Amino acid sequence: MAKPLKLDPDRLFPAEERTRGIARALYAEVAGLPIISPHGHTDPAWFATDANWSNATELLLSPDHYLYRMLYSQGVPLDALCVPSKAGTPATDPRKAWRTLAEHWHLFRGTPSAMWLGHVFGEVFGIEVQLDAATADLYYDTINAKLATDAFRPRALFDRFNIAFLATTEGPQDDLGAHHAIHASGWDGRVVTTYRPDAVIDVEHEQFHDAMKVFADKTGEDVWSWDGYLAAHRRRRADFRAAGATATDHGHVTAQTANLSHDEAERLFRTILSDAWTPADAELFRAQMLTEMAAMSVEDGMVMQIHPGSFRNHNGGLFASHGRDKGADIPTRTDYVHALKPLLDRFGTSTALSIILFTLDETSYARELAPLAGHYPCLKLGPSWWFHDSPEGMRRFREMTTETAGFYNTVGFNDDTRAFLSIPARHDVARRVDCGFLARLVAEGRLLDWEAAELAHELTNGLVRRAYKLDQPAPAPVAAAA
Amino acid sequence: MAKPLKLDPDRLFPAEERTRGIARALYAEVAGLPIISPHGHTDPAWFATDANWSNATELLLSPDHYLYRMLYSQGVPLDALCVPSKAGTPATDPRKAWRTLAEHWHLFRGTPSAMWLGHVFGEVFGIEVQLDAATADLYYDTINAKLATDAFRPRALFDRFNIAFLATTEGPQDDLGAHHAIHASGWDGRVVTTYRPDAVIDVEHEQFHDAMKVFADKTGEDVWSWDGYLAAHRRRRADFRAAGATATDHGHVTAQTANLSHDEAERLFRTILSDAWTPADAELFRAQMLTEMAAMSVEDGMVMQIHPGSFRNHNGGLFASHGRDKGADIPTRTDYVHALKPLLDRFGTSTALSIILFTLDETSYARELAPLAGHYPCLKLGPSWWFHDSPEGMRRFREMTTETAGFYNTVGFNDDTRAFLSIPARHDVARRVDCGFLARLVAEGRLLDWEAAELAHELTNGLVRRAYKLDQPAPAPVAAAA
Amino acid sequence: MAKPLKLDPDRLFPAEERTRGIARALYAEVAGLPIISPHGHTDPAWFATDANWSNATELLLSPDHYLYRMLYSQGVPLDALCVPSKAGTPATDPRKAWRTLAEHWHLFRGTPSAMWLGHVFGEVFGIEVQLDAATADLYYDTINAKLATDAFRPRALFDRFNIAFLATTEGPQDDLGAHHAIHASGWDGRVVTTYRPDAVIDVEHEQFHDAMKVFADKTGEDVWSWDGYLAAHRRRRADFRAAGATATDHGHVTAQTANLSHDEAERLFRTILSDAWTPADAELFRAQMLTEMAAMSVEDGMVMQIHPGSFRNHNGGLFASHGRDKGADIPTRTDYVHALKPLLDRFGTSTALSIILFTLDETSYARELAPLAGHYPCLKLGPSWWFHDSPEGMRRFREMTTETAGFYNTVGFNDDTRAFLSIPARHDVARRVDCGFLARLVAEGRLLDWEAAELAHELTNGLVRRAYKLDQPAPAPVAAAA
Repeated sequence: MAKPLKLDPDRLFPAEERTRGIARALYAEVAGLPIISPHGHTDPAWFATDANWSNATELLLSPDHYLYRMLYSQGVPLDALCVPSKAGTPATDPRKAWRTLAEHWHLFRGTPSAMWLGHVFGEVFGIEVQLDAATADLYYDTINAKLATDAFRPRALFDRFNIAFLATTEGPQDDLGAHHAIHASGWDGRVVTTYRPDAVIDVEHEQFHDAMKVFADKTGEDVWSWDGYLAAHRRRRADFRAAGATATDHGHVTAQTANLSHDEAERLFRTILSDAWTPADAELFRAQMLTEMAAMSVEDGMVMQIHPGSFRNHNGGLFASHGRDKGADIPTRTDYVHALKPLLDRFGTSTALSIILFTLDETSYARELAPLAGHYPCLKLGPSWWFHDSPEGMRRFREMTTETAGFYNTVGFNDDTRAFLSIPARHDVARRVDCGFLARLVAEGRLLDWEAAELAHELTNGLVRRAYKLDQPAPAPVAAAA
Repeated sequence: MAKPLKLDPDRLFPAEERTRGIARALYAEVAGLPIISPHGHTDPAWFATDANWSNATELLLSPDHYLYRMLYSQGVPLDALCVPSKAGTPATDPRKAWRTLAEHWHLFRGTPSAMWLGHVFGEVFGIEVQLDAATADLYYDTINAKLATDAFRPRALFDRFNIAFLATTEGPQDDLGAHHAIHASGWDGRVVTTYRPDAVIDVEHEQFHDAMKVFADKTGEDVWSWDGYLAAHRRRRADFRAAGATATDHGHVTAQTANLSHDEAERLFRTILSDAWTPADAELFRAQMLTEMAAMSVEDGMVMQIHPGSFRNHNGGLFASHGRDKGADIPTRTDYVHALKPLLDRFGTSTALSIILFTLDETSYARELAPLAGHYPCLKLGPSWWFHDSPEGMRRFREMTTETAGFYNTVGFNDDTRAFLSIPARHDVARRVDCGFLARLVAEGRLLDWEAAELAHELTNGLVRRAYKLDQPAPAPVAAAA
Repeated sequence: MAKPLKLDPDRLFPAEERTRGIARALYAEVAGLPIISPHGHTDPAWFATDANWSNATELLLSPDHYLYRMLYSQGVPLDALCVPSKAGTPATDPRKAWRTLAEHWHLFRGTPSAMWLGHVFGEVFGIEVQLDAATADLYYDTINAKLATDAFRPRALFDRFNIAFLATTEGPQDDLGAHHAIHASGWDGRVVTTYRPDAVIDVEHEQFHDAMKVFADKTGEDVWSWDGYLAAHRRRRADFRAAGATATDHGHVTAQTANLSHDEAERLFRTILSDAWTPADAELFRAQMLTEMAAMSVEDGMVMQIHPGSFRNHNGGLFASHGRDKGADIPTRTDYVHALKPLLDRFGTSTALSIILFTLDETSYARELAPLAGHYPCLKLGPSWWFHDSPEGMRRFREMTTETAGFYNTVGFNDDTRAFLSIPARHDVARRVDCGFLARLVAEGRLLDWEAAELAHELTNGLVRRAYKLDQPAPAPVAAAA
């Protein structure tokens, strides 16, 4: 007989009864607040076309690197999961791929994926039995049937999920057509883009040269000259702001910044374009560009997000067969103290600039990030990220940053996901863990109940709205972007 | 209506009822024990002159970098807080500065500053309402009125706080006049100095050259020759010991030590004085001097404290306008295993030497510091320091060091503060967190109740008295210092 | 009056009552399961000869570096503890050494040693009073009397401890005579060896040249040529497999691997043998040999264990007087992401290879090891090791690895000990801590009760049996080993 699927209404709250009671009360205050998703990777075309998704595998399994990396680690080939390779989408029957997931579902015990998907299955699809080999087909059929209905089209779910703001991520080489279509459609969902220029900044990125050509085409600037290249960034930033963007995002290998003179930067840019560059040149150019982006943010008000520290495409064999973003990115040690100093030497005392720092190296929380954010006016701390976007990861984030940076130098939650259906689950986990943390402080006499209630609201909606400037009018376009 | 200020008598104890009961009983044993403060930065002149402090802002806000760094991080200019710059003390009305603190008091929620100041407000000043914009003036007036009374003069508070021992920190270039005045006064408070020679050891210190001149004057030695320089250290150490010092303190960028021959050290010293030195020379000289200081400690019995790992004056702009110690010091990764080996190769098996190690890099607790202190006779672990002097920081310290180093290779608590009025609060936090940790071990069957009671006493008074040799007669002066 | 020694039946379970109840129920399921000890350092001669041990000091104190390192750190000379030096076993009366331990027993409060030995004293020897100065002789006499009985001979204890599998560790230069004797004896205890070739791989090992000579003798290969050297490894691996080994073990300074061509490797090998090698050559050779060992594991199916990150023999003075393994090994920062890439570039997508990774650097758990093991099919995570083989260490291991790697990329518990009598205690600690962790997940609604029960069995017996291939027939010998 199938085992029942039922979400514990007290899940993620501390077990101790008095603390749990406080957590429950705090959560009751914020459980129904709208979702603000200021950083993520959903596809804007979903909201532009509002087309139905096709099936459970294509929507929930084959794009989710959290899922297929775990299965792969236990010997399941990616082809068996319908994960596209460079040769295209494998011929595997999607139903068979779903069964493979179901048979291996025990691997996810204790992981956020199990918690997120449990929420998707139970709350979004209303399924009442556990996923396992015996229920795989029931799941597959139920999900597909619902996905074919109007109630499960992207905009309907957006409304049902009570999403007040959703940012996607595009590069300067990308089309903003889907965003324009959304705005032109008259639909009132607030979906905006984010400026992520990595592909035209990182010469080690396999798409650099193609992206630069598109960058030139889209801007009409001479992107092969240093001044033209900077002007092109200004133009695209203006385009992005016009499409609602309030932020940029930078996914560099390290957090290194630089502060070169105009002439030094120009020479470095010529080296980068010459193909005679070394890895050190590539790193220095990325470093300089973080500072250039900060300079432009001072001009146009866009909030910078820095997501450093991932060793991308670590599995050489898999990168050759399947390309990037296939669950083979591994965090590395990341320094912030020395790395950010060149940028901070220029803008550190500015209150006009706002930079949100993320990390995959939790050792930096208490040692580097909280002290930096607890001092510099321009720095704030993004939430626990990626591998650390989990109950234990969130708890460690709060425990290691709050005492030095406080709550008010943090920026609420980011779901950072392309798995649209899991967005409510992810925000719910964050709200529950934050309420549990606040409850512990109250139970230990470190915070008063009314302070905790105020903070629960701040951590859910207040801080994120202010940090990402969601309620500020966009500044007037600056001259350089004209 | 103002919100009541009332300290939770069970604050900082674990919430679970049985564990809390054990913690409460342990705390009852040590709550009233005298305060031993073996390392800190109070001004000895306070106790020499016993003059009243002037006002709340000058005493509690403008010298407290924990407070103004947080306000600065949220865009409050230091001038608005009466923090002195190189141009002098700003003209801001101290009452207005206090109001600014009050208006931003919510920023400190969940931080040790809130807990410490809550204790100062409630216990030391007897205030019964929360600090906020509406009560700012009430606070300011109440505090100032009390500060003007005899009961709030430094010596009266020293007695009221039940302080049995208080060490300040001075450099070889500093006058010990205040200490001599204290001793000459007949007052029975035990206030002593600590030998902190950084300014005459670190050529990258902006006061190095001035400090060296005073060092020469005060000792009559030829401090510009290597042997004279070492002799000058011996003389000043003897002066400091005569003023009650039992310890030295070393605030280097890293924990690096060196073990050069006399000739190599002499050559390096000439390079340092030549102004042709590189940063590597400066580092090597600091490293060699730690070993020289250890050699002198073997002679004169002074306990060494090493406080490494702070990137000082990280904010270039602020350092230019305001100078050092303005809340802009940021921790960095710190290695101990390779760094200490040269010194340990000379003195590692000695039981005559005692070195207390501190860290701003918590990753070293379980990985490096506990294994080192759990092996070398000369090494002990200082308590969690600075950004980690906090409930969570103390808990992590115990969790990550106890299993390998035990309790007996630690040295009790340091308040390390210049905020004299917060000393009872800080020791109280440490006692509560330690009792909570011991209580958890008892509740989990890892420690017996009578063992925990003995340990509570040791962590409060026993270990610190022995580690800092407070009950040992000073050794006879050695020949070299004659 | 002596204080009673009584083990808390709920020890190590979380204090919170409901969670404790869940932990108790989970533990009841696994408390009686057989012990699988797939990695350790017991002496196979014990089981070959089945001779009685002589006395408490020689069995429990003088070989246990956990014990004597702590005493040494507090100034007790190793000679006083009967720890052998290069000059031989000190003349200290073993009873006197035992008294010294007893007098300092308080030093171990809160450490795993206290917990393990408490279990040995109470459960194995049935002693009912605490160890202290007054009971030292009672202990010494009781233990010695029992050790002289048949019930306390090695095989009897092996059976009483319910050990189903015990692996020792030998090098290619070691005799396997004891293992052969065990098998020839007809005793049904499963004691096998493990191939640990460090001494013939690490040219910085003080026994390298001697070990190489024995390696040549035992294999008949020309170990001074690269191809002969590799052939000799193949031969010894076959010998070890014939003696039951299912695994190899590698205790390198770092986790560095390399992927040199045959010619490059051959040149490097000649350099290593020439005595003109640099430390960088030694490191590169160790790195290359990890990859060579992986290649052989693909052939012969032996599971690789990598135990990196210990700075061996840190105390130069002690190494000179007492030699290696004297409690003076200190962990250092360890990188895995860059270090393992050369090996993974060759074998990373293989499902034939299995590598179990250990660490002494807990910062790598969440940042590097869990992401690596949660992706690569050939990687699994060994349990918390050495200084981290402790209740807090195990808890951190689970908290920092589970969310990314899951439970199924881990391999159960290793006792890794030479202290045979403590094996049940160590496995009991691991089972209790794991059940406590699972119980917390259940109490927080993150795992269902039946999932936790399945996992408790997996963490105790299932995962270790599969990871170490205990139930697989050995593969046929490969041609190269003929």
